Amino acid sequence: MNFPSRTSSLSVGNAPRVRNPSVSSRLSSAVSMAERGEPHDDNGGIAAQHQIDEEIAKIKRYEDFTTIDWVQDAAREQMRRKARRRRQAGLYGSGQFDWRQRIYEAYDAAQGWIVVTIIGAAIGLNAAFLSIITEWLADIKMGYCDSRFYLNEDFCCWGEENECTHWHRWTGLEPLNYIIYIVFATLFALTAAVLVKSYAPYAAGSGISEIKCIIAGFVMKGFLGWRTLLIKSLTLPLAIGSGLSVGKEGPSVHYAVCTGNVISRFFAKYRRNASKTREVLSACAAAGVAVAFGSPIGGVLFSLEEMSSHFPLKTLWRSYFCALVATAVLAAMNPFRTGQLVMFQVKYDRSWHFFEVFFYIIIGIFGGLYGAFVMKWNLRAQAFRKKYLGQYAILEATLLALGTAIVCYPNAFLRIDMTESMKVLFRECEGAEDYHGLCDPNHRFGNVVSLILATVIRIFFVIISYGCKVPAGIFVPSMAIGATFGRTVGIIVEAIHESAGPKSVFFSSCAPDVPCITPGTYAFLGAAAALSGIMHITVSVVVIMFELTGALTYILPTMIVVGITKAVSELFGKGGIADRMIWFSGFPYLDHKEEHNFGVPVSQAMISDVVSIPATGMTLKAVERLLTKDSYQGFPIVDDENSRVLLGYIGRTELRYAVDRARRERALLSPLAKCTFAVPPGTTTTTTTTTTTTNQPSTSSHNQNDYTTGAATTVDFTPYVDTTPLTVHPRLPLETVMEIFRKIGPRVVLIEHRGRLTGLVTVKDCLKYQIKVEAAEHMHTHPREGDLRRLEEEGQERVWELIQKAAFWVSDAVGRASGGRIRLRDSFEGDRGRERNAQGGILDGTEDVAGEEDGLELESRREQR
Amino acid sequence: MNFPSRTSSLSVGNAPRVRNPSVSSRLSSAVSMAERGEPHDDNGGIAAQHQIDEEIAKIKRYEDFTTIDWVQDAAREQMRRKARRRRQAGLYGSGQFDWRQRIYEAYDAAQGWIVVTIIGAAIGLNAAFLSIITEWLADIKMGYCDSRFYLNEDFCCWGEENECTHWHRWTGLEPLNYIIYIVFATLFALTAAVLVKSYAPYAAGSGISEIKCIIAGFVMKGFLGWRTLLIKSLTLPLAIGSGLSVGKEGPSVHYAVCTGNVISRFFAKYRRNASKTREVLSACAAAGVAVAFGSPIGGVLFSLEEMSSHFPLKTLWRSYFCALVATAVLAAMNPFRTGQLVMFQVKYDRSWHFFEVFFYIIIGIFGGLYGAFVMKWNLRAQAFRKKYLGQYAILEATLLALGTAIVCYPNAFLRIDMTESMKVLFRECEGAEDYHGLCDPNHRFGNVVSLILATVIRIFFVIISYGCKVPAGIFVPSMAIGATFGRTVGIIVEAIHESAGPKSVFFSSCAPDVPCITPGTYAFLGAAAALSGIMHITVSVVVIMFELTGALTYILPTMIVVGITKAVSELFGKGGIADRMIWFSGFPYLDHKEEHNFGVPVSQAMISDVVSIPATGMTLKAVERLLTKDSYQGFPIVDDENSRVLLGYIGRTELRYAVDRARRERALLSPLAKCTFAVPPGTTTTTTTTTTTTNQPSTSSHNQNDYTTGAATTVDFTPYVDTTPLTVHPRLPLETVMEIFRKIGPRVVLIEHRGRLTGLVTVKDCLKYQIKVEAAEHMHTHPREGDLRRLEEEGQERVWELIQKAAFWVSDAVGRASGGRIRLRDSFEGDRGRERNAQGGILDGTEDVAGEEDGLELESRREQR
Repeated sequence: MNFPSRTSSLSVGNAPRVRNPSVSSRLSSAVSMAERGEPHDDNGGIAAQHQIDEEIAKIKRYEDFTTIDWVQDAAREQMRRKARRRRQAGLYGSGQFDWRQRIYEAYDAAQGWIVVTIIGAAIGLNAAFLSIITEWLADIKMGYCDSRFYLNEDFCCWGEENECTHWHRWTGLEPLNYIIYIVFATLFALTAAVLVKSYAPYAAGSGISEIKCIIAGFVMKGFLGWRTLLIKSLTLPLAIGSGLSVGKEGPSVHYAVCTGNVISRFFAKYRRNASKTREVLSACAAAGVAVAFGSPIGGVLFSLEEMSSHFPLKTLWRSYFCALVATAVLAAMNPFRTGQLVMFQVKYDRSWHFFEVFFYIIIGIFGGLYGAFVMKWNLRAQAFRKKYLGQYAILEATLLALGTAIVCYPNAFLRIDMTESMKVLFRECEGAEDYHGLCDPNHRFGNVVSLILATVIRIFFVIISYGCKVPAGIFVPSMAIGATFGRTVGIIVEAIHESAGPKSVFFSSCAPDVPCITPGTYAFLGAAAALSGIMHITVSVVVIMFELTGALTYILPTMIVVGITKAVSELFGKGGIADRMIWFSGFPYLDHKEEHNFGVPVSQAMISDVVSIPATGMTLKAVERLLTKDSYQGFPIVDDENSRVLLGYIGRTELRYAVDRARRERALLSPLAKCTFAVPPGTTTTTTTTTTTTNQPSTSSHNQNDYTTGAATTVDFTPYVDTTPLTVHPRLPLETVMEIFRKIGPRVVLIEHRGRLTGLVTVKDCLKYQIKVEAAEHMHTHPREGDLRRLEEEGQERVWELIQKAAFWVSDAVGRASGGRIRLRDSFEGDRGRERNAQGGILDGTEDVAGEEDGLELESRREQR
Repeated sequence: MNFPSRTSSLSVGNAPRVRNPSVSSRLSSAVSMAERGEPHDDNGGIAAQHQIDEEIAKIKRYEDFTTIDWVQDAAREQMRRKARRRRQAGLYGSGQFDWRQRIYEAYDAAQGWIVVTIIGAAIGLNAAFLSIITEWLADIKMGYCDSRFYLNEDFCCWGEENECTHWHRWTGLEPLNYIIYIVFATLFALTAAVLVKSYAPYAAGSGISEIKCIIAGFVMKGFLGWRTLLIKSLTLPLAIGSGLSVGKEGPSVHYAVCTGNVISRFFAKYRRNASKTREVLSACAAAGVAVAFGSPIGGVLFSLEEMSSHFPLKTLWRSYFCALVATAVLAAMNPFRTGQLVMFQVKYDRSWHFFEVFFYIIIGIFGGLYGAFVMKWNLRAQAFRKKYLGQYAILEATLLALGTAIVCYPNAFLRIDMTESMKVLFRECEGAEDYHGLCDPNHRFGNVVSLILATVIRIFFVIISYGCKVPAGIFVPSMAIGATFGRTVGIIVEAIHESAGPKSVFFSSCAPDVPCITPGTYAFLGAAAALSGIMHITVSVVVIMFELTGALTYILPTMIVVGITKAVSELFGKGGIADRMIWFSGFPYLDHKEEHNFGVPVSQAMISDVVSIPATGMTLKAVERLLTKDSYQGFPIVDDENSRVLLGYIGRTELRYAVDRARRERALLSPLAKCTFAVPPGTTTTTTTTTTTTNQPSTSSHNQNDYTTGAATTVDFTPYVDTTPLTVHPRLPLETVMEIFRKIGPRVVLIEHRGRLTGLVTVKDCLKYQIKVEAAEHMHTHPREGDLRRLEEEGQERVWELIQKAAFWVSDAVGRASGGRIRLRDSFEGDRGRERNAQGGILDGTEDVAGEEDGLELESRREQR
């Protein structure tokens, strides 16, 4: 990885330079004082250290595909607070405790809430805007408004009681309408795919798995940028309008989190502090779900259960507040003019009977199976896409939309919008209009066939559509599938009940002569089951379903169904589709859902041949040579290579910054200058007594002289060293170390035995060990796995050949028809995806991302810089 | 604290003895192997280590008022798993992979769910039983059933359509009924207080704060025992029936958690593993709230937001499942025969208007102020109770019930049950019967006065009742207070709307000629605000209110009100009443709601003059002398006192066990025998080369000889030493160390600088530092605090004198009237409460609890053993 050098030089140019040449010496004295446990009371030293930290923090942000060190982040924040407090004390001290300070303090304390309010309002506004656009796009496929073209059917006909005179179908001829419908659908998908590919490749897909990693501390530059925000907001309505089997909640979460990221950048507090930013991003994820479903509490719980690895109560309250503001703004905007926040409020007159639990269990099992099936095949589809379709992202999305439109039109439940179809399926039969004879006992057979077909076809399209390069969620499609299946079960149960008659023992708790079974509730429960099955979430699903429909009496059935789904899902492996995607993409993410039982000490997973730097004596040249090697994120500092007594740790970025800075400030710096990384032991109490191979004792006064004269033979890097890295004993269980990574969040943990460095472990090392153990176990239980994989790959190859043949035939046909002017075959190139990561490698910034392997996202990331 | 010695000897008698005398030597070789990072493959060694760990774990459970070391707990569990895996491999190894193992594995995997199901069902059954008893007790105050005395009014009159012939008031004379009512109320309270005091003093109060600490790892023996469970279950209906201003949810949580603790003890997995038990206890807390309110999801969120310091997703799912089972069982039992799970389902026909937000804000502010006011004065009342009323617990509860009955009867809203009053207040005016003319515009003024009186009187009684020595929650009373206040606001708004007329700008969004304001919704929101204000919880309140009533359209107003309440509450300090009680009682609990910014290194808070034990050379006599001192929980092991290179840590309990065991096994053990605590550095690779002041090299073969001959001059304590204690650098920020305590959960963190021990820090030390800093800040901002405290104490003294005078007068009067046979004055003695802790000390097992300071709870705890 060779861009840190470019970026650091880029940012150093903008960084405020430290003018005071004696800063370094003051710092080292501050450091040695702190070494003795004494509090600092040197304002200048803290301020300068603070300034350097700021500069480093600035560079750090440019380091892509690395993880954030939460421990250092917290330490830096504390230093900042302390510096501020002292600055204030200096400004307002000695009795001048005046109103300016109070106002500033109040603003500072309230800043978090102010930011969250602004972000929430922005998310709510955006959601309202998107809803209106989506409605218009969905309607424009059908017809147009002759009074004002920009109105959708509802608004065009607003206030007209009986008949709508302004809204027209495109033509009077039905087949022609159908073709226009298909053309529009394809056009929308094409536009969306082109926009995504050209301006913000990160806007493709759902974004949930990436955001999970980002909230956990993984840096993906540009993923939450304004460009992604803009393109995701623009293309989401297009993707939904195109009729693809994709939902809007994943993308909603993504644009909400983008909004949060973009807005919080305007506030210095958030620009500098990753931990506070994480809080805001969690809150935004909650708001995103809240506005997508009109379910504020469901959003908060989703953020808690699915998105956030770290969710303290403060974040809970921030999320609550952000979701509240976003939902309130959306309600105030009232984009549908119905005054309703929820998409499909239903009211069930009848309560449930205990015998129905039997059928609820069936629905629950379906949910689990659905989730496992879709995950398995969707991951295969994704692997196929990554391997073969990387170059054809636009074509793929367009063809998918075309196919979906053609296949889905004939089915009554696939033709209408997914939200609309759920509304229809959830309804009771009494007191509501009947769609497609759903409540008519005479149409039962036809409807059951229709519903089963709808379920199967939709599952197929979800598998191949989720992950295509337009904004695409999986919540609503899953719910729609669950609803069609549930309604099928409901209709069958109703039929059984009727044919069994009122005397049947099984149905004995039914009152005679009145309807007993409510098929709509089965659809409702089916939606909950499918949603839970695909995402592996429980509490949030119950609350979301509950907030969507207000079906309070059905809370216990919902919980039962979701519980069964959860149990069945667990049989097929850990984690929902978002977690699988994380694993698939190779992000360094320690799943907090899993419990590991390796039963080995951390020494099994650690890297023991660590490249360490001696406290004194290394030449600048050697240090620079270390930096050219890409495989290290940082270097432990030891007193000397033999005793290896651990003194600290220096990050790669800090070291590079320090070297650059030293070179910049002292032009005549010799490559043979000796580098000091730590005050040798003993200097804290007396003068240097330990082994000094340098001809310069590393006390501060001498350093200062070197600095000012410029003819240097020694460079002091002490201020850049983290003297308090987290260390553990080599025999500490690996699980405990993983707990530390997960909950405390350092970037690296050093292994120290009786004061001596024995190794180093990062999240990546833990994951590598985990993968190794899992592979070994898997090999043990499934010895024929290799054969299967080969078969699978052969299958993929054959599918690809088929697709290619078909594609060549079509493109040749089109080419011939257009006289050679349209050449589909080679119009999309240079788009190869992150193929490398499909092999199970873990990204953490140490890999060589430059060169021919450079994927789509990485490429674009650079362009954005 | 001198009972560990008693208890250890007690438990060691039951513990299985290790017969193999060479165990220790094998262990030390295993240890030294592991030291080099090699995996164990000595089954015997692991098994033996495992056995010793089990024995220690058994003793550990007897150590009261200490905290659990979660790191050690996890390590022990891993060792157990490994031992089991190896045992299985030994039993079924080499191809005999048979069905027994599979069944065992399946049972083992499912055990968690089985346990939670049993516990959930038990909680549900208990809740149903308690509901029936409570109803009967509430009704028996009014009258009796002449067909079957054990039926309450509803069941007595079951099936009788028009008039109930079997239910009778006690007498025909109304004043006499009133007196009988008062007598019953007093009697119930008396019985409850006597039962609590005699059999399970821990059953008093709410229990929520103690359970919070227990879940965080604090050991309180007997607090969750079967005795507490039984008495709490028996006395809760009595306390509610007595009409005291106490609720049933705190106690519900307590008895649910007791149920979980008692049942999980039957399963070996939970008996041994504190971490798994914690999971179950969190789940039980959720089930407790779920059955108290009929709100399963609300219960889960309550457990998450309020109860649990550690809430991973696995616990979330356990809680979900436990709450589901408990609620389903309760629903199946259907104790009220209404088929309703929720207490007061309401349906609002009208939605809310944006202008009403103004009034919602008023209600929210009320909630915050209510919480702050009640907390402040309730804590003062508690301090007063602890100081003066310790001996009069029974009398106090009885008099409170008497006073409550006398004062509350004249008020229409206080006379009825709190749940009933909420039901009345939440209702819409349309289509429901009208209680006390609440909907009649002509009674408005009277009702407003009545409601305000009810609010004020109830607040007063809540302040003095919460904390009295019967089971007492604060949820429902708070909600009732909020409801009366909210309804007052609602009625006033309605009156303003009517007088302003339809043309008013403010009310312009109201439709003309139909009711616009729904006062019931204000009562509903008031209840939410008061609940949030007193407990400082947000999301759970919204979900609970929502599940209680099903008022879906009011979710945004509820969120707004609760948000305002939260903001107002924050102004008056951190933490709800449960947190304040924890602080008040001095439990060592690191609040996870707070964020600390001390900005100091951990060395500021650590204890630096740690008593450490050298690896070799200490005599048995010296070790035993160390153990007689009570002020240490454990001792770091260093290589020698001068270099202080840290080698490990031995807990007090382990050391005592090891010493007892050594004495038991070798009768002739000399007090001058040298103790070995660690393999000296260097022996891992070669033989002993370091300073050996003992005349016996500490290799394993020699040790074994010592063991078998019995004439010992050296004792090996190596197997009992934790060689991997968590260590940090002295300059690590204190906040990070507190994070480690909170999230990783060790009992102690050692401070190590370049391999050398410099100090030791426990949760208690962190809290002490925190209290010191807060006191200093407080002194700075409130310099006259001392004066205020003196005034407060003087006030308390005066109140106490008044009470005494009144009490003496009454008791003398009673004595005279009864001819000296009844002597109230000295009937209750020996009950002094935990006075000591009122001074802000922190309990962690190191305090001298024996002797004259021995409080009520500690006394009874001993009896239970």
